[in-house]
Amino acid sequence: MKKKFDLSLYLVLDANLCMTPDGMVETTRKAIDGGCTIVQLRAPEWKKKKVLEAARKLKALLEPEGIPLIINDHIDVALLSKADGLHVGQDDISPTDARALLGNKAVIGLSIGSGEEMREADPEADYFGIGPVYATQTKKDAGAAVGIEGLKELCAMTEKPCVAIGGINRSNAFKCVEAGADGVAVVSAICGADDPEAAAAAILQEADLAKRS
Amino acid sequence: MKKKFDLSLYLVLDANLCMTPDGMVETTRKAIDGGCTIVQLRAPEWKKKKVLEAARKLKALLEPEGIPLIINDHIDVALLSKADGLHVGQDDISPTDARALLGNKAVIGLSIGSGEEMREADPEADYFGIGPVYATQTKKDAGAAVGIEGLKELCAMTEKPCVAIGGINRSNAFKCVEAGADGVAVVSAICGADDPEAAAAAILQEADLAKRS
Repeated sequence: MKKKFDLSLYLVLDANLCMTPDGMVETTRKAIDGGCTIVQLRAPEWKKKKVLEAARKLKALLEPEGIPLIINDHIDVALLSKADGLHVGQDDISPTDARALLGNKAVIGLSIGSGEEMREADPEADYFGIGPVYATQTKKDAGAAVGIEGLKELCAMTEKPCVAIGGINRSNAFKCVEAGADGVAVVSAICGADDPEAAAAAILQEADLAKRS
Repeated sequence: MKKKFDLSLYLVLDANLCMTPDGMVETTRKAIDGGCTIVQLRAPEWKKKKVLEAARKLKALLEPEGIPLIINDHIDVALLSKADGLHVGQDDISPTDARALLGNKAVIGLSIGSGEEMREADPEADYFGIGPVYATQTKKDAGAAVGIEGLKELCAMTEKPCVAIGGINRSNAFKCVEAGADGVAVVSAICGADDPEAAAAAILQEADLAKRS
């Protein structure tokens, strides 16, 4: 059976902001205390040895908490670290190819930035990362911002769970969930916060408020 | 049984010089006609979708010729393209971790640039890529050149097959094999040649001459 996952507050660990594998572990520990529900390791700038070290340390932290670990791009790292899933972009290995290596239990996410990408989305994707909702500095190859209206349209096109990503923080998380997202993916508003636990808790509160409204 | 491999003339395909997956296929086709014995796909600049496309096209070309395809760094691409092996550097996933995913048949190569690295070399490596022998422009993160004397010392430290790499061309291939290497790995002297077939044939002739001398 596929691992259950909750997209409410999706922490995306940034290699530059966290700097080291131990820095990622530290940020994640605090974000968990703040209520984050799923964690992605994203470090395109790092060599694989360092990425694998981070993945194994994060898995050891997250497994007892029952929080899924998702690896960005690298299926080999996902397999070796026994991560719960993979997140891929449009120019990465496809969800169908990834599924062949990772099996049915793996949670596979796909980045979506337009109606065309949503219509042609690989059926093996389990959830969609929709964005960037707002312009962002943390992902240099991200496409044009889709905005809240774009997010609403894209979420309405699918039955699968969707997480909003790109420039999301405490001030706009409510609007993203109100627009139809099942949760918000946050990078710098947690990884770059002075108090990642408080930041996570505040963003989660906004998302929860929107779900109940 | 592990696939047999011959390091005599090891073509390392360069993403920037070949530009596209089809460019890699074209260069490889010519290099095979010139006698190349093993091929590595190395494209750290490319996104994985493009790397996988190149790997599958190269495998379709090389399989009928009985020439092994080695993938640099990406175990996921090696698995999906049914490549014959993997080449890793010191900062990549270790040969032991790679073996766990690729199995016993896979040919695994490891880059070595010093006596310390050779002494501590992962026992799961099947061959060593020793260098850079000369300074090179094609691999920006390569260490200091070991020179012909360094190559000789490193080859003498192991019973495993060694291939010399880094700035190798027609004019110095003989010296590399004379120093103890089982073959030469060539990047720009083939990928950047006007006539890759003639370049490959000329370099292979030098290597063969040194083996017989």
